[in-house]
Amino acid sequence: MPRPIHVALIGQKFMGRAHSNAWNQVGHFFDGPRPVHLHTVAARDQSELIPFAKRWGWDSCSDDWRSLASIDEVELVDVGTPNHLHAEQALTMLAAGKHVACEKPLAGTLADARQMRDAARKAKGSKTFVWFNYRRCPAVALAHQLVRAGKIGSVLHVRAQYLQDWGGPSTPMSWRFKKSLAGSGAHGDLNAHIVDMARFITGDEIHEVHGAVARTFIKERAQEGKRGKARSDVDDCVLFVASFKGGATASFEATRLACGNQNRNTIEINGTKGSVRFDFEDMNVLHFIGPSDDPRIDGWQRIMCTSAGNHPYADAWWPDAHVIGYEHCFTNMAADIVKVLSRRKPLVPLPDFEDAYQTQRVLEAALVSARERTAIRLSEVK
Amino acid sequence: MPRPIHVALIGQKFMGRAHSNAWNQVGHFFDGPRPVHLHTVAARDQSELIPFAKRWGWDSCSDDWRSLASIDEVELVDVGTPNHLHAEQALTMLAAGKHVACEKPLAGTLADARQMRDAARKAKGSKTFVWFNYRRCPAVALAHQLVRAGKIGSVLHVRAQYLQDWGGPSTPMSWRFKKSLAGSGAHGDLNAHIVDMARFITGDEIHEVHGAVARTFIKERAQEGKRGKARSDVDDCVLFVASFKGGATASFEATRLACGNQNRNTIEINGTKGSVRFDFEDMNVLHFIGPSDDPRIDGWQRIMCTSAGNHPYADAWWPDAHVIGYEHCFTNMAADIVKVLSRRKPLVPLPDFEDAYQTQRVLEAALVSARERTAIRLSEVK
Amino acid sequence: MPRPIHVALIGQKFMGRAHSNAWNQVGHFFDGPRPVHLHTVAARDQSELIPFAKRWGWDSCSDDWRSLASIDEVELVDVGTPNHLHAEQALTMLAAGKHVACEKPLAGTLADARQMRDAARKAKGSKTFVWFNYRRCPAVALAHQLVRAGKIGSVLHVRAQYLQDWGGPSTPMSWRFKKSLAGSGAHGDLNAHIVDMARFITGDEIHEVHGAVARTFIKERAQEGKRGKARSDVDDCVLFVASFKGGATASFEATRLACGNQNRNTIEINGTKGSVRFDFEDMNVLHFIGPSDDPRIDGWQRIMCTSAGNHPYADAWWPDAHVIGYEHCFTNMAADIVKVLSRRKPLVPLPDFEDAYQTQRVLEAALVSARERTAIRLSEVK
Amino acid sequence: MPRPIHVALIGQKFMGRAHSNAWNQVGHFFDGPRPVHLHTVAARDQSELIPFAKRWGWDSCSDDWRSLASIDEVELVDVGTPNHLHAEQALTMLAAGKHVACEKPLAGTLADARQMRDAARKAKGSKTFVWFNYRRCPAVALAHQLVRAGKIGSVLHVRAQYLQDWGGPSTPMSWRFKKSLAGSGAHGDLNAHIVDMARFITGDEIHEVHGAVARTFIKERAQEGKRGKARSDVDDCVLFVASFKGGATASFEATRLACGNQNRNTIEINGTKGSVRFDFEDMNVLHFIGPSDDPRIDGWQRIMCTSAGNHPYADAWWPDAHVIGYEHCFTNMAADIVKVLSRRKPLVPLPDFEDAYQTQRVLEAALVSARERTAIRLSEVK
Repeated sequence: MPRPIHVALIGQKFMGRAHSNAWNQVGHFFDGPRPVHLHTVAARDQSELIPFAKRWGWDSCSDDWRSLASIDEVELVDVGTPNHLHAEQALTMLAAGKHVACEKPLAGTLADARQMRDAARKAKGSKTFVWFNYRRCPAVALAHQLVRAGKIGSVLHVRAQYLQDWGGPSTPMSWRFKKSLAGSGAHGDLNAHIVDMARFITGDEIHEVHGAVARTFIKERAQEGKRGKARSDVDDCVLFVASFKGGATASFEATRLACGNQNRNTIEINGTKGSVRFDFEDMNVLHFIGPSDDPRIDGWQRIMCTSAGNHPYADAWWPDAHVIGYEHCFTNMAADIVKVLSRRKPLVPLPDFEDAYQTQRVLEAALVSARERTAIRLSEVK
Repeated sequence: MPRPIHVALIGQKFMGRAHSNAWNQVGHFFDGPRPVHLHTVAARDQSELIPFAKRWGWDSCSDDWRSLASIDEVELVDVGTPNHLHAEQALTMLAAGKHVACEKPLAGTLADARQMRDAARKAKGSKTFVWFNYRRCPAVALAHQLVRAGKIGSVLHVRAQYLQDWGGPSTPMSWRFKKSLAGSGAHGDLNAHIVDMARFITGDEIHEVHGAVARTFIKERAQEGKRGKARSDVDDCVLFVASFKGGATASFEATRLACGNQNRNTIEINGTKGSVRFDFEDMNVLHFIGPSDDPRIDGWQRIMCTSAGNHPYADAWWPDAHVIGYEHCFTNMAADIVKVLSRRKPLVPLPDFEDAYQTQRVLEAALVSARERTAIRLSEVK
Repeated sequence: MPRPIHVALIGQKFMGRAHSNAWNQVGHFFDGPRPVHLHTVAARDQSELIPFAKRWGWDSCSDDWRSLASIDEVELVDVGTPNHLHAEQALTMLAAGKHVACEKPLAGTLADARQMRDAARKAKGSKTFVWFNYRRCPAVALAHQLVRAGKIGSVLHVRAQYLQDWGGPSTPMSWRFKKSLAGSGAHGDLNAHIVDMARFITGDEIHEVHGAVARTFIKERAQEGKRGKARSDVDDCVLFVASFKGGATASFEATRLACGNQNRNTIEINGTKGSVRFDFEDMNVLHFIGPSDDPRIDGWQRIMCTSAGNHPYADAWWPDAHVIGYEHCFTNMAADIVKVLSRRKPLVPLPDFEDAYQTQRVLEAALVSARERTAIRLSEVK
Repeated sequence: MPRPIHVALIGQKFMGRAHSNAWNQVGHFFDGPRPVHLHTVAARDQSELIPFAKRWGWDSCSDDWRSLASIDEVELVDVGTPNHLHAEQALTMLAAGKHVACEKPLAGTLADARQMRDAARKAKGSKTFVWFNYRRCPAVALAHQLVRAGKIGSVLHVRAQYLQDWGGPSTPMSWRFKKSLAGSGAHGDLNAHIVDMARFITGDEIHEVHGAVARTFIKERAQEGKRGKARSDVDDCVLFVASFKGGATASFEATRLACGNQNRNTIEINGTKGSVRFDFEDMNVLHFIGPSDDPRIDGWQRIMCTSAGNHPYADAWWPDAHVIGYEHCFTNMAADIVKVLSRRKPLVPLPDFEDAYQTQRVLEAALVSARERTAIRLSEVK
């Protein structure tokens, strides 16, 4: 019987819930090389934390995240807190010899991200992971496999948008609208995902940001339970055009104000021989077009990525077209983390701090470009 | 602290897995009035059952399903076995005073189904449930709510198809192709679902089957691990046209040979004032059209049924358009069973044996019509 | 310079307009072997006809359709009148040695249709054509080519629906709701099209109607400019299930009461090796799935049927994806009629009276089946 | 009987054909206040021109476009030639007192465009028009009407792409790849359309281009009928991000190398209260979402823009969902030109040289931004 992986988690909000579910479900659906044990969850608010821990099967809970560093049994610490806390928590856990799985974006600032990357480089015994969950949406993983296998030829264009619509004027103030806590608005929350996906699928790195625009349309928001309005100092949207080292052009757009688009995380990649297209709102499907044998029947193929033996992660779940949902991406990622912690290879590459730092540099370049009204090469962003 | 519901399960295959997941997840996502305890799972093959029970958190396991009847603690027995076993297992458990949740179709034969209905009527202390899981797909539940609230007016047409494509000639023999075990082929497996959905959404009952055709295209199938072919004696497809008591026309088609349609469970209902349309392959979406305020913008509305506060079961899951998948329908149903066993109302009606028996009569009428080449009124089918 | 084809037209309503456009456009877009000359148009109402003829470039007009028979120059008479007039007009013109192109359905009654078929058989010098225009929708013609070339294997299922929504209670009385003029309602108007399409694409004939239902939901309609209501004695909808000689099952549904479906003429055909799917509301597209080389990318292909050299009729029109519309099907058909009248082959088969009579028999069989509540073999319908 | 509008046309290629069709069809489908007469067509190659003129019904033809200026009868000269010829031809015709309808983009260079704008300002008796045909796609005209009527509130985001895929390495050299003839590649050909559409629908003007990238991926192309390759010196793609005076962000992308996208001219506009979305490959449809009465049924509405009385230009064509195609946009525009030349108002605004010059300035700003690697305000581009 293989040794279980004892996991500890920091955070009990949206991501705390998604991660707890993943650690529960991974053993139900995957024949992992090692079982997972939900050891301890840490968060500030104990009145909420105790029922949370019980509900999700965490063995114990703590109001002091630092205490996790000293639990010998805990092998992996999972950081599911707001962005400004990632650096301190991850650094502490790496220093304690833990593996660390951190929510995305890597950090609230590039300086924090760099420090985390440096710490990860030094902590040779520790593995790091960043929860860019959409990589493990089977359709996205398949896109990666197809593009990396040359099925669309050389990449010419990347076109990525992450459109949400919950950030209208009636949405009250929260940590997500405060730069000191979130680092940025839609940019770090949403562009982080699509920049990661673009890098993951193409295997190429951004070379230059040609121009960018960031906007805060709604500058003040009501406060729940308080009079008066509070200032929102994060972007509501950021758009930019860029190019990859390999020459491909790219555009990225993140917004919380695209009425009618609730979680439209889309990417299309055109190559010299074909294209792939993904839209999270129809997440089980990848659209693909490749070189044709018979031009009469040439057209986009709607691939339902649920076929065991053919599609990434499909073996773990249900029969063909018995579709999966949002949280399955996290469970798929948990399964790959378990593999890596068992000295096996993940099904598709897992982002570590080094990798996520590259995404953070792209985000920074876009902000600089927007602010300085100029193109900027990535080599200028350290 | 409310008393837990101790559940026992019979079966460890596809449905055993789907139900085990539902009993696990219901407490994670729903604030049910009572907790659920996974007490015992029973199945014949103990070498498979022991790891199955461990994986899914069943406290104990048994190779004798009858033994469940005598476990006092067990309140609900969940029957997840092939169709020909439903009657005996359900009757035994009802006789022992258990609540019973049975997989669909209710039974392999109408005679069995009638017996189960009769037993359920007599067993006054017992609740019965049938796992017509698609009722609890949020889009289907919303269709029910909208149609029952009169949003599409009086129903004129129902058009339902359940198309799969796994049953081609290369698929080997299994219990699903044997009438003695399965009762029927695509008909009981797939038409059962769409007849139930049609009855559920419209609230009306089939009055007459006007005509039907059943076909077994592939009459012999290879046997795994054996020489020679075995005879398939179930339908590969059944189609029929019918009408409802309220006058609406209806068509139903189930097939396992519709190449390219893997799990295309679709229904469209047209009323005097509007329509609803559902396709399981895009399961989070309901298409709706109703009376127009402004004919310039009149058109089908694509409703992403994931909005907490607005859509059935959405409160339990994730933010808007963070879509759910197949197994969530079972978890939603488990949550409603828990409610009913706590003397609360389910979110939308739960099918019991009485209800499922009506669906079985429709299936029988279609078979009779196909065989006798004549229309048949439901009043002739007892 | 080849001799022009002098065409005469009877009718100036919806179909008079569609046909006039086709005869005008055919010379603009096709390099036909012979030019077309719009000789005479005949209709009862001269006050409307004179501006109609002028608008569409007809050289002369007449209030006596019989007079066309004696114009020697006229080679082809195009019958675009209500269904009950087809027989007399076509018989007269065939007797006069004209070629005849008749609107669909062939006739208002099977007896009329049989007479027309018989007359066409006898009139050896005359060619007959029936305006089943959807055959010449490029996507439908491509479906025909692919299926007849074996790309989907043997046909197992046909699933066809023609759904409109203009026939609600607020729609006033017109000839289309009078059996004496129209022969039938949605059945002859819409089922005629999809039965023809099914026969055309599969190349097979219906063997049996297993059951049918016809409904007149709205029995009285307001009369424009008159008090009181008039009785509608045609079907609002007809549905039936059938099978083909080759064994394939089929379902057909025509209705004018499918709210939200304005001109949804759809057909899906599943074969042993693949499938095709068409929906007129996205008429430039054919969906196709065939045998797979690589199961990872297997999926429905969305074929934009607009590519010169690859798709039927595409050479005549615009560059790729510069899509065409409804009336182009008529122009494509006019181009094929010109070919046939020049002793060339049409691009895909043209329906003649013999062919359209087979469709009429199927429609009749469905009505008999609905009325007599029994299955009926086509061999019983003469 | 109103005086006819005598039209002369320069050009007989793709656009010559589209315009000839429009001038033919306008009288068939529209009850214009004045009839149109196809007077003379001019082009260099007489061997092609004579059959062209005959086919399309032009009364006469000429190998000297300048001669059109002196035909008194001709009221409107339609310029359908390559971009570098627009200025000289338009200026000549304006000087001769003709109305001028010019193909888009207005000119090959901004200097030419400015000269044309200035000449149009001076030629007080002449009307000018630019064939931005997509404005008269009914779905786009409806988007304009809805947005201008405030149905989506204030505009926040514009997202426009015009993706084609015909420009791969196997496509041989043509005038479209030569800067001296075409002015630019995808930029003037495709971005011109979507910049015009964005300005048309929003009613707002671009204030700043924040950054841009232009690429020529394929630098040499085979020459038909010649040895050796010729240099392509136009862009294969241009992308840019911009913002409007009203504050909305915008992105534009034009490419001829987006495999699988043949004529994907798309625009989405998000406002504070709703959104519109258009894709030319499904050109009869506009997607719309507005403020909700009932959040349960909130979702994108798929508007089939073919309903007489409700949708722009629909009265002229066919019944509901009897869809129209590409060339109908030109015919709709011809109908509006006829109206303006009859002192009536067009259904939606027609672009004149002044208007098209504003689009040309935006295109220029994008090129400058790409070249100089900096943001640029439109006020800097004269």
